[in-house]
Amino acid sequence: MASEDVKILGAWPSPFVMRPRIALNIKSVNYEFLQEQFGSKSDLLLKSNPVYKKIPVLIHGEKPICESLIIVQYIDEVWDSGHSILPSDPYDRAVAKFWATYIDDKWFPGLRTISRAEGEEAKKAAAEEVTAGLVLLEDAFIKCSKGRSFFGGEKIGYLDIALGCFLGWLRVTEKMGNLKLLDENKTPNLFKWAEKFSSDAAVKEVMPETGKLMDFAKVLLAKSKAS
Amino acid sequence: MASEDVKILGAWPSPFVMRPRIALNIKSVNYEFLQEQFGSKSDLLLKSNPVYKKIPVLIHGEKPICESLIIVQYIDEVWDSGHSILPSDPYDRAVAKFWATYIDDKWFPGLRTISRAEGEEAKKAAAEEVTAGLVLLEDAFIKCSKGRSFFGGEKIGYLDIALGCFLGWLRVTEKMGNLKLLDENKTPNLFKWAEKFSSDAAVKEVMPETGKLMDFAKVLLAKSKAS
Repeated sequence: MASEDVKILGAWPSPFVMRPRIALNIKSVNYEFLQEQFGSKSDLLLKSNPVYKKIPVLIHGEKPICESLIIVQYIDEVWDSGHSILPSDPYDRAVAKFWATYIDDKWFPGLRTISRAEGEEAKKAAAEEVTAGLVLLEDAFIKCSKGRSFFGGEKIGYLDIALGCFLGWLRVTEKMGNLKLLDENKTPNLFKWAEKFSSDAAVKEVMPETGKLMDFAKVLLAKSKAS
Repeated sequence: MASEDVKILGAWPSPFVMRPRIALNIKSVNYEFLQEQFGSKSDLLLKSNPVYKKIPVLIHGEKPICESLIIVQYIDEVWDSGHSILPSDPYDRAVAKFWATYIDDKWFPGLRTISRAEGEEAKKAAAEEVTAGLVLLEDAFIKCSKGRSFFGGEKIGYLDIALGCFLGWLRVTEKMGNLKLLDENKTPNLFKWAEKFSSDAAVKEVMPETGKLMDFAKVLLAKSKAS
């Protein structure tokens, strides 16, 4: 598939950018990874996503596709070179989309709140919210995986990508806040899933190393506190 | 299709509830419309949508499906008795999903802000934001419809449903605030589209009458100001 004209506008630390990259890896599609510089926006990004001016953008030929979960769906529909990413059953598909939306709208904003929380009480409350969300997702995992390795079955699927892309930031938040969020005892299935997901061939090269991500997070945090 | 066991948990004034109802009309699927009482939540709703406890929920047999846009996609995938609601081309589908997400995340929250704005300046600023959004959507309409009647082509599609369900509340906001938001001169294509959408057979019986919706809005506004 080397002849395909596929570009991803992104940045290595972004969890949202990981999503289309994992999806393209699953489909064995080669792509050019054009990294935006932190704090500025390229002309190509402004032209490709004029409404939000945000990464990731997939550019397929001349066509820009925006919003990470929409891009993953697009990749699944366009390329049949790898396994299916979305579940084949319409109900399973609706359930996967529901939890992916939950992760973006509720769970991840909670995770971001932890590192920005002022004071121990606020940090503790935010951490409890994140853990409660993981308990919900543990239950969703049991129902979706039906005893198999991933939300999507034996192979990585839509919901695996939606949640898994945040594992790097989850680990960084745990280390920086001296917290245990993904707990082996409270959410044993998710704990095992996280290991398997992170070591999957489609994920490995895309998942940032925790130390490197932590250095980046420290810079980010210092900048946000200075502004 | 009378034998299908299909229920919608909803309420007549909710724009989000209109979406699955229009989709089921397009597919000629009979359904039971179970209306929630304003200010309370039924046991069936709490059981069917334990995460958000929100309408609409589609219950198909024993299976609950939540989130209005996900429900519309589910209906389109399960029933082939009417025309396709999502575009058949993956890129067109991604574009329709992008704008539907924009409407829910950016445009509609702006519309809600108008009626809650304190003072003329704040109201004017909120109205300008809504109008700017409609100009973006006018441009999207020109690109998506390619000279045809709807975003989806000759028949009502996904993006028509996503935006069209807010027309009742748009008209109420215009009347109550003495504003012109959907302007014949600024957005002539959307202006014509709104007329066609509202009078479509699948929409007509579901679209609330503006006067009735305004009475409901006044009660709602009085309650929110009292609390």
